[in-house]
Amino acid sequence: MAMITINEIREAARRIAPYIHRTSVLTCSAIDNQAGCRLFFKCENFQKVGAFKMRGATNAVFSLSDDDATKGVATHSSGNHAQALALAARLRGVPAYVVMPTSAPTVKRVAVAGYGAEVIDCEPTLQAREETLNQVVERTGAVFVHPYNNEKIIAGQGTAALELLEECPNLDVVMAPVGGGGLLSGTSLATRAVAPDARIIAAEPRGADDAARSLAAGHIIPSVKPDTVADGLLTSLGELNFPIIRDHVETIWTVDDAAIIAAMRLIWERMKIIIEPSSAVCLAALLQHKGEMKDLNVGIIISGGNVDLDHLPWLN
Amino acid sequence: MAMITINEIREAARRIAPYIHRTSVLTCSAIDNQAGCRLFFKCENFQKVGAFKMRGATNAVFSLSDDDATKGVATHSSGNHAQALALAARLRGVPAYVVMPTSAPTVKRVAVAGYGAEVIDCEPTLQAREETLNQVVERTGAVFVHPYNNEKIIAGQGTAALELLEECPNLDVVMAPVGGGGLLSGTSLATRAVAPDARIIAAEPRGADDAARSLAAGHIIPSVKPDTVADGLLTSLGELNFPIIRDHVETIWTVDDAAIIAAMRLIWERMKIIIEPSSAVCLAALLQHKGEMKDLNVGIIISGGNVDLDHLPWLN
Repeated sequence: MAMITINEIREAARRIAPYIHRTSVLTCSAIDNQAGCRLFFKCENFQKVGAFKMRGATNAVFSLSDDDATKGVATHSSGNHAQALALAARLRGVPAYVVMPTSAPTVKRVAVAGYGAEVIDCEPTLQAREETLNQVVERTGAVFVHPYNNEKIIAGQGTAALELLEECPNLDVVMAPVGGGGLLSGTSLATRAVAPDARIIAAEPRGADDAARSLAAGHIIPSVKPDTVADGLLTSLGELNFPIIRDHVETIWTVDDAAIIAAMRLIWERMKIIIEPSSAVCLAALLQHKGEMKDLNVGIIISGGNVDLDHLPWLN
Repeated sequence: MAMITINEIREAARRIAPYIHRTSVLTCSAIDNQAGCRLFFKCENFQKVGAFKMRGATNAVFSLSDDDATKGVATHSSGNHAQALALAARLRGVPAYVVMPTSAPTVKRVAVAGYGAEVIDCEPTLQAREETLNQVVERTGAVFVHPYNNEKIIAGQGTAALELLEECPNLDVVMAPVGGGGLLSGTSLATRAVAPDARIIAAEPRGADDAARSLAAGHIIPSVKPDTVADGLLTSLGELNFPIIRDHVETIWTVDDAAIIAAMRLIWERMKIIIEPSSAVCLAALLQHKGEMKDLNVGIIISGGNVDLDHLPWLN
């Protein structure tokens, strides 16, 4: 079993500091009034590549020895992790290889290639993805960096909560959304170490509630045919992530897509910031449980802001 | 002729400090790369009521003697000034009366009423608006607060540039959009006093270019049938505003709506902040003049972020 402690998260923070943004923590009295508590939003939508994923990817890439790094890094992803890994590799001056299904939107392909990564196509199946990744690793000698089931990634993602708690030491609750669990496990470890009394609560779309079901069952239940507007939260929990979440997370609230879209729009309208649907899941859940949060100080990690501005969910 | 000096602006800053946000100054390396210079965005979209107008309105309302304030304040506006005046009046605990044409969208009516103002309908003509306002002032004894042709408003709007220059003392250029000229005249006075060598450049939609034409002619040329997506910049220059702008502004660049919409979208996509079309006019103009701005430090006042999220300009 992996052991990631606050020391690894603090090390990650030092390692990545030259390459990432220390993002703002924003507040909004109008939303506080609706929620009946004080909310502190850690704005990773302002992070490089528009998402917290830059933290973990940068930690993973800059943790490699010079020898290992030279051959580059590889991953399979069509999301924010792919862009983050591509940029982190470019910052270190090493190659990045991204395996992407032929079904991925052109805009994502272009974004990853724009950061200098080589994009390798595969058929849109789990098997094809893994086979293609193995071939790439074999051919190039690149190091595979999993999007969330990776200690360096978890430690890197934990730096967002670390910064949040440095700026707001009096939080009663820290919230993060959960997909694969990289952000949530890192957030849990950082919070438990720095603010031992703070409650850690996660939120998940009802249409991709494998983490809530896994927590209830006591073992990982894979995500099967997830269906939600929060497209950053579709994946199953990782093996490294699950026990951390099980040990530290008080509960995982689930919400439906209508509530996610309403919370997303509320943040756009009142805070004037652009967040992606996955980032609205925590506020959506909190508004449904506000009776339990009355007058508390609640930190929420806004995971990212990468949205297709031609297809906003409330206009569909 | 009115004399507004940096002293009035500093007084305004002290007066309004308890009631307004000191807004962030954001930077974006991706946009810097496109522009070929370093940009510092003063984010008044994060201001209360979502626009810089809160500064001037608050200064005007809190400058009144207790006797004058008791009877309240009045204005004609369907835009951000109306909301700002309503909120400032509520913060002082006095009535606000807003004359609004029957053609104004319901959402604006609701917003102003939501801040506790009394909305008085009028026919959508200039004459009806002024007559109705006069009747309201006569009936209530309220003080008329013009949206821009008012010394307290000008001094209040100048506090945004004052804060920007406190945070970024090495700006070579300060830019603001121009409609009625409240923001631009305040920005000019603050900049000239605090950073005497900084160049002051304005930007205006080509479809509402009365300020550029007024500056060229040496006298105010009213705005006739303006037509632009930047709906905060439709009005004609005020008599108090024009001479200040004439004396301090180096030039007014004009840009067409396509460039404004493209710049607005660029800021949404790369900075993850929501700005209204009027706020994109400066960046649009700068991108067309970037040869002249090479390697300079340029401050841009982002005027506001009130956008109808159901009708984005690039989706029309």
